[in-house]
Amino acid sequence: MNFEPNDDQIAFIDMARSFAQKELAPHAAEWDRDAHFPVDVIKKAGELGFCSLYAPESVGGLGLSRLDASLIFEQLSMGCTSTTAYLTIHNMVTWMLASHARPEVIERWGAALATGELLGSYCLTEPGAGSDAASLKTTARRDGADYVLSGSKMFISGAGSTDILVVMARTGGEGAGGVSAFAVDAATAGISYGRKEEKMGWNSQPTRMVTFENVRVPADHLLGREGEGFRIAMKGLDGGRINIATCSIGTAQRALDEARDYLRERKQFGRALAEFQALQFRLADMATELVAARQLVRLAATKLDAGHPDAPTYCAMAKRFATDIGFKVCDEALQLFGGNGYIKEYPMERFVRDTRVHRILEGTNEIMRLIIARRVLADGAGEL
Amino acid sequence: MNFEPNDDQIAFIDMARSFAQKELAPHAAEWDRDAHFPVDVIKKAGELGFCSLYAPESVGGLGLSRLDASLIFEQLSMGCTSTTAYLTIHNMVTWMLASHARPEVIERWGAALATGELLGSYCLTEPGAGSDAASLKTTARRDGADYVLSGSKMFISGAGSTDILVVMARTGGEGAGGVSAFAVDAATAGISYGRKEEKMGWNSQPTRMVTFENVRVPADHLLGREGEGFRIAMKGLDGGRINIATCSIGTAQRALDEARDYLRERKQFGRALAEFQALQFRLADMATELVAARQLVRLAATKLDAGHPDAPTYCAMAKRFATDIGFKVCDEALQLFGGNGYIKEYPMERFVRDTRVHRILEGTNEIMRLIIARRVLADGAGEL
Amino acid sequence: MNFEPNDDQIAFIDMARSFAQKELAPHAAEWDRDAHFPVDVIKKAGELGFCSLYAPESVGGLGLSRLDASLIFEQLSMGCTSTTAYLTIHNMVTWMLASHARPEVIERWGAALATGELLGSYCLTEPGAGSDAASLKTTARRDGADYVLSGSKMFISGAGSTDILVVMARTGGEGAGGVSAFAVDAATAGISYGRKEEKMGWNSQPTRMVTFENVRVPADHLLGREGEGFRIAMKGLDGGRINIATCSIGTAQRALDEARDYLRERKQFGRALAEFQALQFRLADMATELVAARQLVRLAATKLDAGHPDAPTYCAMAKRFATDIGFKVCDEALQLFGGNGYIKEYPMERFVRDTRVHRILEGTNEIMRLIIARRVLADGAGEL
Amino acid sequence: MNFEPNDDQIAFIDMARSFAQKELAPHAAEWDRDAHFPVDVIKKAGELGFCSLYAPESVGGLGLSRLDASLIFEQLSMGCTSTTAYLTIHNMVTWMLASHARPEVIERWGAALATGELLGSYCLTEPGAGSDAASLKTTARRDGADYVLSGSKMFISGAGSTDILVVMARTGGEGAGGVSAFAVDAATAGISYGRKEEKMGWNSQPTRMVTFENVRVPADHLLGREGEGFRIAMKGLDGGRINIATCSIGTAQRALDEARDYLRERKQFGRALAEFQALQFRLADMATELVAARQLVRLAATKLDAGHPDAPTYCAMAKRFATDIGFKVCDEALQLFGGNGYIKEYPMERFVRDTRVHRILEGTNEIMRLIIARRVLADGAGEL
Repeated sequence: MNFEPNDDQIAFIDMARSFAQKELAPHAAEWDRDAHFPVDVIKKAGELGFCSLYAPESVGGLGLSRLDASLIFEQLSMGCTSTTAYLTIHNMVTWMLASHARPEVIERWGAALATGELLGSYCLTEPGAGSDAASLKTTARRDGADYVLSGSKMFISGAGSTDILVVMARTGGEGAGGVSAFAVDAATAGISYGRKEEKMGWNSQPTRMVTFENVRVPADHLLGREGEGFRIAMKGLDGGRINIATCSIGTAQRALDEARDYLRERKQFGRALAEFQALQFRLADMATELVAARQLVRLAATKLDAGHPDAPTYCAMAKRFATDIGFKVCDEALQLFGGNGYIKEYPMERFVRDTRVHRILEGTNEIMRLIIARRVLADGAGEL
Repeated sequence: MNFEPNDDQIAFIDMARSFAQKELAPHAAEWDRDAHFPVDVIKKAGELGFCSLYAPESVGGLGLSRLDASLIFEQLSMGCTSTTAYLTIHNMVTWMLASHARPEVIERWGAALATGELLGSYCLTEPGAGSDAASLKTTARRDGADYVLSGSKMFISGAGSTDILVVMARTGGEGAGGVSAFAVDAATAGISYGRKEEKMGWNSQPTRMVTFENVRVPADHLLGREGEGFRIAMKGLDGGRINIATCSIGTAQRALDEARDYLRERKQFGRALAEFQALQFRLADMATELVAARQLVRLAATKLDAGHPDAPTYCAMAKRFATDIGFKVCDEALQLFGGNGYIKEYPMERFVRDTRVHRILEGTNEIMRLIIARRVLADGAGEL
Repeated sequence: MNFEPNDDQIAFIDMARSFAQKELAPHAAEWDRDAHFPVDVIKKAGELGFCSLYAPESVGGLGLSRLDASLIFEQLSMGCTSTTAYLTIHNMVTWMLASHARPEVIERWGAALATGELLGSYCLTEPGAGSDAASLKTTARRDGADYVLSGSKMFISGAGSTDILVVMARTGGEGAGGVSAFAVDAATAGISYGRKEEKMGWNSQPTRMVTFENVRVPADHLLGREGEGFRIAMKGLDGGRINIATCSIGTAQRALDEARDYLRERKQFGRALAEFQALQFRLADMATELVAARQLVRLAATKLDAGHPDAPTYCAMAKRFATDIGFKVCDEALQLFGGNGYIKEYPMERFVRDTRVHRILEGTNEIMRLIIARRVLADGAGEL
Repeated sequence: MNFEPNDDQIAFIDMARSFAQKELAPHAAEWDRDAHFPVDVIKKAGELGFCSLYAPESVGGLGLSRLDASLIFEQLSMGCTSTTAYLTIHNMVTWMLASHARPEVIERWGAALATGELLGSYCLTEPGAGSDAASLKTTARRDGADYVLSGSKMFISGAGSTDILVVMARTGGEGAGGVSAFAVDAATAGISYGRKEEKMGWNSQPTRMVTFENVRVPADHLLGREGEGFRIAMKGLDGGRINIATCSIGTAQRALDEARDYLRERKQFGRALAEFQALQFRLADMATELVAARQLVRLAATKLDAGHPDAPTYCAMAKRFATDIGFKVCDEALQLFGGNGYIKEYPMERFVRDTRVHRILEGTNEIMRLIIARRVLADGAGEL
């Protein structure tokens, strides 16, 4: 066992940290306030490879492992949680297309997604079927050389500002086995976008409903084969869960760092706050739980990299634990700032708002518990 | 012992609930979004007596007990947390003036505060001295028939839109004993107001810094006597802590009610969410902790009403526990709403944002723990 | 509302405290070590009325309210958790018999139970049907002037050392409606007692399995009517839950008191432990949660006294919350004692062991959550 | 990074698991009940190298890393927590002697300690100086060729049944710098042993006070140099903290496994407990937190192996987190067993009693927080 990053990883970490500090952190508050989607900065991130970290080199991706990607996203999220979270979704979309699309579709869009020239959205969730994704109702009916898509998707990150949609739709019967995945040009006739949702946080990325009315998609834009869509979507989500867990860890580390600095500088009752034992204890617990959560995220990433059969369980564990701990650390850091934690002049309240959604999306933490419990209780299940 | 409200209390509860449902709840989201201070609605609340619940009848107050007031504020906060919280501050200010001002000052402002015609702000906290209120630096220098105030106050609720300021300033030496309290006309020359703070929540009340530059206040605007200011401020805060704890309870009850309705209506995996045992358990815990917190708040209120020597301890307990539980219940209710909990179309994320500050103000929950511990560890301390 | 005990209640509290300090506390460690059931001391308690606090005066009971009884049991449990817990079970049995037995049975046993001359056991739980009490399999077949009981009961407090058993057995079909309750002479032929269970705590009361093999019970020993047994048993348990919650509160108060004294006396790093802020904060939280739990227990007791339709829900809330908090306070008090908390020279580890079972019995805290959730989610359910 | 054990480690794990299942698990309940110290089984463990896992091969140790040792102790603790915990202390003593003693002392005792022929105790804690170890009062006065030791040590594991004591005593002035460490023959004249402490758990190892009255120890039995004793003791404790954290993890894994099996077998309300969602969620959380804790323990072990300057901080984090989580998992597993969890026929209550002390010893978890906070708040401290 070895828990230290290697030289390449250290180099990536440094590059990501530098990008986060220069390109993300100085603007994050403003992007949050104005609900601005910083497409230009995302493209800059693409120049460094951050739009296709684990997509294959054949499409121009860096071909890194999920672990490598987690190390990088962790740094980026210290600069802007919300923008990095979108970046992770784009990476997931890019990987899904690069891994499952027909060669001609990869040829058409792969490189542009890999560089961030084109941006992607992941369209799984539907109104009325949040956690029960396999019951989705959007249909894809074969009609000649096309599939015709009809239905609605909601809570779609980036929607309205992105170019490529990966859409899960029903080509067959009920349940997971009837679902197929498609790469869809976001500007295709028949696609309409709802108003930008007003959200608690994650404001630097637009979220919209996407409605498909008889949208014609060329048949070769199918990812994998008919009926494989749910499996592909879930495989994407395993990585997505590590990514979002990572964004929680990075943000929490930033919150902890800020809180530590604040305690060292701020005086009350004639002493630095850092000298108050009860606050010291709290800082110690924040740091401890954060380190534990980080290890769990990295463990899950290596399991996914190794194609371990229990990888989905580990990803679920990492997502559940790291997003809960991440939020808790941010919430306690806000508390340590006192009244200043509550005003937008300081970033603490934004950290809380942004990390709050991580406990919900990419599968709620309740769904994570179901996944974990199923594995623990399985016949002949060994230790995790 | 008797834990049931009497007929008068039930009547007040009904009146407050009705007001909350008609005048507050329908507008709360909009006030939050627009950072609108609903002065007109506050004045309407004043017509029902809600601006002077526990101020004496001599100034036009209802002369109710703190317990009665808590029952009423609880209902109001179910309509709008932030507006009710301001109302409680106004009540505190009104009570402080009615209880400690010179007759001529009461004559001048008492009735108008009691009806809500004039609004009040409580000016204690200073930049650089959040929890350590006794170290405040604003000075009040006697000069002829006036005191001359200089210094800054921060996080002042209502500031810039209110008419009367109760200001704590130093007339004597260091520490609590050198502090005096003043009733000050908010429009006095030399008072300037900072920009409206952008906050995580509590958006329906403006928060501003208030700066005093050689502000002349007539000497008879002193509350109590010189050196009594800190004691008066703390006495006001005992009630303020019950009030803010109450706002947490009311908001959490509303969040629980909404979550229960949502679980009953919303279907996933072919069943109502309400049928999932793990969610049932969570609802049970939310309800249980909320009922416990409510009892603690009411216990504290009766102790304050009775002038019990341990009232400040009970108020601190109620504030600490009810604001933590209140936030937790709101946070879990948000989670039960899934993605819908995170968007502003539903009130859950607002409940979380609004109750977050209750753990910080009127004395942080850390200061509450100090107050409680001091009592528990006191020589000869009996059971609480 | 009024949260203060009246003069009568204060007198009872004093009497109970005195008894606890003189007759229970000095022996509790020894009873625990030797697994000694202090029948003589229980009889002494009976002389003061503690064996029939809420049984009617007609049988020699004190006819107190459940609230009064809770105030008294709280004091007693400060002396010995396990013995007081048995006392509460005896009180429950006495009340069940006095409330539901035929006059001739009350005549025969009522007074002796009320004074503690005879001791009772409550026989509901069966092997294989812990929480699912309504599925019990013990049968009571009518045969002439008798019922003939066959089956097994487990975890029966006092069994083997008590005189009267209240036994729930099936006289009819499946489910709760087929259950009847009987008062049974513990020495009846056909009743055999298993070995004394070795338990984590609660060692001053024996726990045994009770086996019934064709045990003849006179038909007039039926409590209530055929088919009412489950309802009677549950009604008994409502009070039982308040009682056991009370024992948690009392023990936790004792643990808190001991911890406070220890922190004041014990020095480390040249200062009393009481001066360490992190430990002060912990003490503050223990005290706060304990006061909240106590209020919830008392609220539930008054609901039961008033015959409020939601009384079972409040009793479940009180049981769930107070037994969890009670254990937590004891566990943290042990921690504050450091190594000394772990050895039997100090009572802390016994408090932890004794209160641990409160989270399990009289309905596990999981069953409590089901009861609470059912009420919260009921059609047209109002606020609790 | 790589989180998988290598082939050698897998072989060690298998061997340890097999030993635990054959030699420890079948007797653990009995050893607990009888307070029996299984010296014969410890010697058998020694034959496999378990008495000197990380002692150098030069004394007959296996020369393994701390990480390897943790993997092995984890398996052993699944068989018997208390016996394994003693084994870890013996390993620590063996390592301290092998690393710091004069060659002739190593020659005399090293091999016999390494095989378990002789057993060791670690004597640091004193009455009245639990956590403040550096203030110890036992003196070691140089007198000719000897040191003369006087003072008392308490909570000494194995004391009275062991052969070699590593004793920290004061040779110089106040504070840590005045402390030296000695290897002492446990049978030396002047050493007396107190009565066996009655404890909540850890019953398979005797704990006694050890009193030194003018005990002559040859000067060459000094470990390291005068004044290095505290540093040596703390270095030993870094490993000791990993070990004790490991024992919590192993026991918790066993508790989780038992609870899972129980939920699968046990039926209530006509269904296996494993089908109840609320219990599934609890199992999921237990598993998740346990995996996170295990990773943290292994991370700390690799930091210690690498001589990383932050190793003491990581060891403190691992100890704090893993012992808290380990206890929590055991406590919840007990709860899942219901009434059966509380009786000694099942091992759950023993797991709770045994792991309870891990939160206290080798430095309380409060001391761990101080260590962690000091590092977090240090000047120029980087991320952990």
